[in-house]
Amino acid sequence: MAPSCRDALRIDDLPTPCLLLAESVMRHNIDRLKSRLRSLGVPLRPHLKTPKSIDIARFLMETPQGPATISTLREAEEFAAHGVRDLLYAVGIAPAKLDRVTALRRKGIDLAIVLDSVEAAEVVAARSRAENVPIPTLIEIDSDGHRAGVRPNEKARLTSIGRILHDAGALRGVMTHAGSSYALNTPAALEAAAEQERAAAVGCAETLRATGFAAPVVSVGSTPTAHFARSLTGVTEVRAGNFVFFDLVMNGVGVCTLHDIAVSVLATVIGHQPDNGWILVDAGWMSLSRDRGTARQTIDQGYGVVTDLAGKPYPDLIVVEANQEQGIVAIRPGGTASLPSLPIGAKVRILPNHACATVAQHDQYHVIDRSCSAAVSAVWPRFRGW
Amino acid sequence: MAPSCRDALRIDDLPTPCLLLAESVMRHNIDRLKSRLRSLGVPLRPHLKTPKSIDIARFLMETPQGPATISTLREAEEFAAHGVRDLLYAVGIAPAKLDRVTALRRKGIDLAIVLDSVEAAEVVAARSRAENVPIPTLIEIDSDGHRAGVRPNEKARLTSIGRILHDAGALRGVMTHAGSSYALNTPAALEAAAEQERAAAVGCAETLRATGFAAPVVSVGSTPTAHFARSLTGVTEVRAGNFVFFDLVMNGVGVCTLHDIAVSVLATVIGHQPDNGWILVDAGWMSLSRDRGTARQTIDQGYGVVTDLAGKPYPDLIVVEANQEQGIVAIRPGGTASLPSLPIGAKVRILPNHACATVAQHDQYHVIDRSCSAAVSAVWPRFRGW
Repeated sequence: MAPSCRDALRIDDLPTPCLLLAESVMRHNIDRLKSRLRSLGVPLRPHLKTPKSIDIARFLMETPQGPATISTLREAEEFAAHGVRDLLYAVGIAPAKLDRVTALRRKGIDLAIVLDSVEAAEVVAARSRAENVPIPTLIEIDSDGHRAGVRPNEKARLTSIGRILHDAGALRGVMTHAGSSYALNTPAALEAAAEQERAAAVGCAETLRATGFAAPVVSVGSTPTAHFARSLTGVTEVRAGNFVFFDLVMNGVGVCTLHDIAVSVLATVIGHQPDNGWILVDAGWMSLSRDRGTARQTIDQGYGVVTDLAGKPYPDLIVVEANQEQGIVAIRPGGTASLPSLPIGAKVRILPNHACATVAQHDQYHVIDRSCSAAVSAVWPRFRGW
Repeated sequence: MAPSCRDALRIDDLPTPCLLLAESVMRHNIDRLKSRLRSLGVPLRPHLKTPKSIDIARFLMETPQGPATISTLREAEEFAAHGVRDLLYAVGIAPAKLDRVTALRRKGIDLAIVLDSVEAAEVVAARSRAENVPIPTLIEIDSDGHRAGVRPNEKARLTSIGRILHDAGALRGVMTHAGSSYALNTPAALEAAAEQERAAAVGCAETLRATGFAAPVVSVGSTPTAHFARSLTGVTEVRAGNFVFFDLVMNGVGVCTLHDIAVSVLATVIGHQPDNGWILVDAGWMSLSRDRGTARQTIDQGYGVVTDLAGKPYPDLIVVEANQEQGIVAIRPGGTASLPSLPIGAKVRILPNHACATVAQHDQYHVIDRSCSAAVSAVWPRFRGW
């Protein structure tokens, strides 16, 4: 039960650094993508690697049983223990991990895996036969040269893998992830990336079907392309994870405003070096992460944008450098604002470059809400590990 | 009790990714610095922020009670619970943290703090009087413009802080950290940085003493300067942390060889993109960290150097890019070696850019030893948080 604002734990009571989550902002982000996908007629299979929290997963999933996407078997096991039953493990399978996959499947969890090679397909096919129950498998498609996967023009590789899986009853379809979309920053480029992602996946599924193999699932997704796709014809599900929180990288890509960023790190001022124009805070890379994803963007946000306790950014104020437990806050290079007066003990919030990396440095979300902004309405645990 | 090699958990049994620690390498690193400091006549106050493990702390400390350095109050509380009684919290104090500091002191833990401002000194002095027991405090000195601290030429600031602490019985001395030494890479430059660090700290202590304040402690240290100082005259203790494991950044600075790096991430090959010359592994930035500290060095090691299971680096093979749970392994730009044959399921080890950041992504050290290299002799937990 959420306590009343008057009785609640308050932001002022929290030891710093710690992680804040603005629940209403998160809900808005979730509603926005779900409503978008509804209009395109495709369901969401949210990627739970970002939150790693069952409390947040329940906002993201269509039902308490899923569907959902995960990036580690630890996530699969944790979420399965909390009742999630429809999971896609969206990282190329290592043969030694099949024991844990089949253990979950024997418990009734519909855990699907991905792979992109004949070697891995042969292992999965052999295991499917040995278990006498196929392990449903998606063939990973490389739609943009970003990572892993069969390229759309590698038809021989695609159909060889497809045949091995099909013959073992293990072929479920194809999946792709347009990771290169993170490097874009115009609506036209993002729309083109989304269409490239869609076309690659649908085309490969059609190639498999034309060869005589059932490939019912066509799974695509990345946070940028999910928000810019104009058509998802032929796609059966969209995966995205980062959008639940958004971050400065996604702001630089053009997918969200600063106001849409749902997580921040609460920090305390611990010193000043006035000759350098520096304010020292107790949030270093241990709490912010070492992610410098905005360094490659038009606006380099250092280790994060500094806001007041209500979430309003101080003009031009960023974390310019980070030690393990200290951040150096200053006006950004070229910035014209003057340094705000923040005495020792003052608290600030820091918006993350990359939410997935920043939240991974923490074990709890301290949930706050705009309507009751100084109160902490809940503390939601997160897990980690593999 | 360590199991025999024959019975032991073996590297092959470990789920990947996971963290390996070569105990003999770590012991060598500890012996090397301790023997060096012994010859210079100064004790080590090891920084436990790097290992965050009582098992490793016991190798580092001179006695089970300390002394030691920590970077968070969580570390202070954890190590105190395991019997460590002499601790320096080496990050500028935030006023709201004094409750936890005094709670530990009331339990008999000699926890000292640091600060660099009149404002913080006044808070600590008032608290020392209110508690009727002084909180021992070191004044942080900025010996190289890297972070926080009073500059050696700011005598008025130094003596003002000194007076406030002295009058409250809370002044214990000075401390500095030559963080800029991480950017150097020649013995001459490192020796000069060590001398600058020593001279700044000793000079400030002498200024305080000349003003009539006792300042018995002169605490200096960083891993590079600790290994290159030629004289530590006037210094009473040396702090260093990273050296326990070393890493690729320290290799680039010239403080260690690749052979001295005690930690690595064990990973499994999950795919290949032969047209790109890529091998995909299941270690991404979640297990390696986002640290790219070698990007600013002469040799950019990407997200880490790839070795075989015995720890021998494959020529020119590094992790060139990292997604959350996938690393892309390839020959380094300009490298002339050819890609080794590593089939799906093969295991490799990855040496970290920055050990402090990489080990922070893990909850256990899997301890291995050269003499029994396929066996895991122990699993040591680590903690995190604030």
